[in-house]
Amino acid sequence: MEYRLALIGFGTVGQGFVEILRDRNVELTEQFGVSYRITGVCDARLGSIHDPSGFEPEALLDAVRNGGGLESLSAIDHGWDAMRMAEDSAADVVVELSFTDLETGEPATTHVRKALESGKHVVTTNKGPVALHWPELSELAAERGLQIGVEGTVMSGTPTVNLGLNLLRAANIRAVRGILNGTCNYILTRMEAGSSYEDALAEAQEKGYAEADPAGDVEGFDAAGKVVILGNLLMNEPLSMSDVDRTGISGLTLEDIESAAAAGERWKLIGSLERGPDGVKASVAPERVPLTHPLSSVGGAMNAVTFDTELMGEVTLVGAGAGRVETGYSVLTDLLEIHRTRAG
Amino acid sequence: MEYRLALIGFGTVGQGFVEILRDRNVELTEQFGVSYRITGVCDARLGSIHDPSGFEPEALLDAVRNGGGLESLSAIDHGWDAMRMAEDSAADVVVELSFTDLETGEPATTHVRKALESGKHVVTTNKGPVALHWPELSELAAERGLQIGVEGTVMSGTPTVNLGLNLLRAANIRAVRGILNGTCNYILTRMEAGSSYEDALAEAQEKGYAEADPAGDVEGFDAAGKVVILGNLLMNEPLSMSDVDRTGISGLTLEDIESAAAAGERWKLIGSLERGPDGVKASVAPERVPLTHPLSSVGGAMNAVTFDTELMGEVTLVGAGAGRVETGYSVLTDLLEIHRTRAG
Repeated sequence: MEYRLALIGFGTVGQGFVEILRDRNVELTEQFGVSYRITGVCDARLGSIHDPSGFEPEALLDAVRNGGGLESLSAIDHGWDAMRMAEDSAADVVVELSFTDLETGEPATTHVRKALESGKHVVTTNKGPVALHWPELSELAAERGLQIGVEGTVMSGTPTVNLGLNLLRAANIRAVRGILNGTCNYILTRMEAGSSYEDALAEAQEKGYAEADPAGDVEGFDAAGKVVILGNLLMNEPLSMSDVDRTGISGLTLEDIESAAAAGERWKLIGSLERGPDGVKASVAPERVPLTHPLSSVGGAMNAVTFDTELMGEVTLVGAGAGRVETGYSVLTDLLEIHRTRAG
Repeated sequence: MEYRLALIGFGTVGQGFVEILRDRNVELTEQFGVSYRITGVCDARLGSIHDPSGFEPEALLDAVRNGGGLESLSAIDHGWDAMRMAEDSAADVVVELSFTDLETGEPATTHVRKALESGKHVVTTNKGPVALHWPELSELAAERGLQIGVEGTVMSGTPTVNLGLNLLRAANIRAVRGILNGTCNYILTRMEAGSSYEDALAEAQEKGYAEADPAGDVEGFDAAGKVVILGNLLMNEPLSMSDVDRTGISGLTLEDIESAAAAGERWKLIGSLERGPDGVKASVAPERVPLTHPLSSVGGAMNAVTFDTELMGEVTLVGAGAGRVETGYSVLTDLLEIHRTRAG
């Protein structure tokens, strides 16, 4: 079965995904009986092209590499904006990869809404629409018999969302605790090796993990967005950003790190959800994790989530939390799930 | 949607599963739009009953508890053997939970074959049919458009098989390394705390983790069966038990444990699969795992698997490896997957 895809946003994640399609389309057909044709791509910086007969993955990547931009490729339609691509493109699935805005969720939320209203499935790695508008969007999708894949919003392509939603939800998820921000985890791991907070942050910035303004990571906003997403999806709790009690790591000192180590513990920035008698309590805060817990051995830029369930006890998933190909893979996972649950 | 189930084998796992149905059928209908009716149960020790109108979970559990056996319940049919239950029962899914035989895979394999041939899906926690006859059984299922759920054959209800098969296989699984036997891991964890191998084994036997004849666990046969299953399912390699290079833990001494600890490492019994130029190499052997690897923090009777993938790097899943309700949950996971992929 062939699926036509329209990509909104063609930055690192989109390019990572298209590289995967270039390299693995034959295996995908053999293993899963599925193939993907990219019929539209639009990007604020690189331009916009649309053609129902599709574009070769390598041609798209080459247009970025050689600086010509997307409009240098031959196509039926040029210059469509993202709204038109979401609504009018000849696609079965709209892949929404535009930039994340955790305050309004726009314009991504409108892209997702338009795609669903025009009968297309959606896959997105964009935290904004999911953290801020999940109840509305998921209801819209359900009404139309469509799916929204959001694997890439948490732990990049490590299949956290699908694991929780499809394989653990029936065990009754009572709590979720996770290392959800790789930048903070990298800084804390470096501090364990003796770096000061300032030096570790500078290193993280050099490596491209942290932005010039690191507040989104180190003050816990990024982790809070993921907590909100997991709460909405896995615990059916309509949380918003302001419901998360949030503390970052910028107050931690080398002395804190050392005194934890002396007690057989490690500081981790933990995003947490816990169902109690008054609903779900959501927080992001540095915590001391004992070395006997699986979360303690998660070092560097890795991420991890522990699901505490009624029937299975604790189940922990550890994997990459970021990366071009890794986040691109989340798009493929969601696409394969759409196929698996439609084809049955 | 309602599914009728026939259970072959009603020991701890079957009872654990029926307890889950008793306690959670309402939530399952609300969350997943699905309900389950048990229309047949047969067990070598407890008897056999069949009734298309179904049995109450609590009545089945009560018949075991009060010693009356299944035949004390009113039913249309009594005394059917397992073959007849697999073939003639009014069920959509046969749940095969009879005892595991890793030498012949029988009689479970015949139950599975009969169920598929008569048009029923199969869910099994039985390692025998899957380790020894997977290529034949999976082909038979595919020909008939049926599914075989085998989540419970590895790490009980921790969703290892579904994670690997549905969410990581497209990332190209190059290697799998796991702590697949809880008894061995318990013994090794106790040895780290200072117990001798003999004392730790005796403790494991007291707690019911190890059998009176512990060879199946401590010599690595159980782990080898799971390695064969993961190789067949996730790496598409028709391995058999004799392909696994197998060493148990009975040769490890306290000195070995201590010298590993001094080097920042821990002994774990690792089941391993690795794709190389000459096919997949399969082994079970004690290995020293560095404390910085997620597998090192998996203590006691817990299990874990690390999937090494081309696109996602290492992804590790940690969770329960055994247990009445935990293994019962694997049956529910597989049933929900059958529903999810048929209902789409």
